[in-house]
Amino acid sequence: MATDSWVNETLYSAWGQRFRVVRELARVQSDFQDIMVFQSETHGRVMLLDGVVQITEADEFVYQEMLTHVPLLAHGAAKRVLIIGAGDGGVLRRVLQHNTVERAVMVEIDGEVIRLAKEYLPGIAGDAWNDPRAEVIVGDGIDYVRQAEAGSFDVVIVDSTDPIGVGEVLFTDEFYANCARLLSEHGLVVNQCGVPFMQADELHETSLRRAKAFADVFAYVAAVPTYVGGFMTLGWAAKDPALRAATVGEVRERAQAAGILGATRYWTPEIHCGAFNLPPYIAEHLPRG
Amino acid sequence: MATDSWVNETLYSAWGQRFRVVRELARVQSDFQDIMVFQSETHGRVMLLDGVVQITEADEFVYQEMLTHVPLLAHGAAKRVLIIGAGDGGVLRRVLQHNTVERAVMVEIDGEVIRLAKEYLPGIAGDAWNDPRAEVIVGDGIDYVRQAEAGSFDVVIVDSTDPIGVGEVLFTDEFYANCARLLSEHGLVVNQCGVPFMQADELHETSLRRAKAFADVFAYVAAVPTYVGGFMTLGWAAKDPALRAATVGEVRERAQAAGILGATRYWTPEIHCGAFNLPPYIAEHLPRG
Repeated sequence: MATDSWVNETLYSAWGQRFRVVRELARVQSDFQDIMVFQSETHGRVMLLDGVVQITEADEFVYQEMLTHVPLLAHGAAKRVLIIGAGDGGVLRRVLQHNTVERAVMVEIDGEVIRLAKEYLPGIAGDAWNDPRAEVIVGDGIDYVRQAEAGSFDVVIVDSTDPIGVGEVLFTDEFYANCARLLSEHGLVVNQCGVPFMQADELHETSLRRAKAFADVFAYVAAVPTYVGGFMTLGWAAKDPALRAATVGEVRERAQAAGILGATRYWTPEIHCGAFNLPPYIAEHLPRG
Repeated sequence: MATDSWVNETLYSAWGQRFRVVRELARVQSDFQDIMVFQSETHGRVMLLDGVVQITEADEFVYQEMLTHVPLLAHGAAKRVLIIGAGDGGVLRRVLQHNTVERAVMVEIDGEVIRLAKEYLPGIAGDAWNDPRAEVIVGDGIDYVRQAEAGSFDVVIVDSTDPIGVGEVLFTDEFYANCARLLSEHGLVVNQCGVPFMQADELHETSLRRAKAFADVFAYVAAVPTYVGGFMTLGWAAKDPALRAATVGEVRERAQAAGILGATRYWTPEIHCGAFNLPPYIAEHLPRG
């Protein structure tokens, strides 16, 4: 590979980011998708699925912290966490940082993503794979939620690709109905919802579906450096509207108890609470209450 | 130009954004810089200076609102505003939206930027050029602040390129000392400070310089879609530390009085106050208090 080769992200047809590649590390066509891992000059190692950036070593902390710490600390007493997708193990690691968590089940459809993450991105999950509280299943998330026992989890975290291709089933009415069933009384689901400046329909349409199964449907924001295009939104679907009204003081206290306070680079109690203050250009895509 | 031609931003040597170009509208080498305006497929018209995106029609509101409304409403009684740079006129337009503003002086070094913005990006400034409260000067900002009368402005907004090339003098000790002198008792300066995930030195080094002339030096964040790389920071240098402690209620009241409330797509009173809550990865680049 020539030293001046670039990888262009293909998420959008006429705008996007590009990385200069030091060296390609892996390129695999799995049963589900095209997986690429390369060494970038600027962002450490980068994994793409079907041409879309999933994770870079340099900025993964932003997305993982916001996708994990916000629901767990909003809930306040989350012991059982279900993770759908997130094959790189980064969410699993952040979930297990909470010493209050007793069980974390991760269901990833593509075993090749896990294998390549373990081989080329070992720092993302760290020791999480071997934590006795973790159960890692290679399987279909839609099947798992269909069969899971009612009330058996407190939080569901969906770290999927966009609602096209392999990730599509994770945004259906059936999926959310099953999430509502398997969650406990104060349970909630969060899921990645795209970058609304570029993909406003994704936030709007998936929010409408979440609203069929949950009393409180909203979104919160994170500025993830390599999910380019301004704020990304993380979808929020909770049984109890009180969960997103937790104060900075309450969130700080819970984070202290869980062992999270001071261990983050993006998340703070203030950013946690502030992330629900949506710019009007984003808020207008949520269903009217 | 072929229909599949792309413009690659050259701000960083090994990572960045690219736009598919519908048609190039202008390409001028001025006395100061290379100026390009093109029609993009995704973001309306785009202006680049020396290969760096300055403004797109689609997302300019984020940057302009945060660079303007935050200092004016934090001050609370800003009547006289000095704008350095911002040749597209977008900041001028937002400043003049405040019916509390009596005088706005804009000093842009490159008359070609103003000319091209008027011709190709007329919606950015709208009628601001003809507002009787506006005085537009083609000249050097460093000279203007050197000669300005002491206490003659309440707010200075610096909308410059990064501290390299033509923008460099706007980040010097002398520039900030003159700003402190020309500002009134509760005056403040804000300025664009780059994207710290990629350019942390810019925030750190310019903050150290601001701290030589101002009692309260800090930064606030905005997620600007085409200033890619996560949050950008806007530098904050105020004579009075109380200005950034304004509450959501106070800010809302002032915005109502100024005619801003409900007229924004990114800025809200909550986002105004929340923007000072910095992620640790950004806060660590500020000088210790």
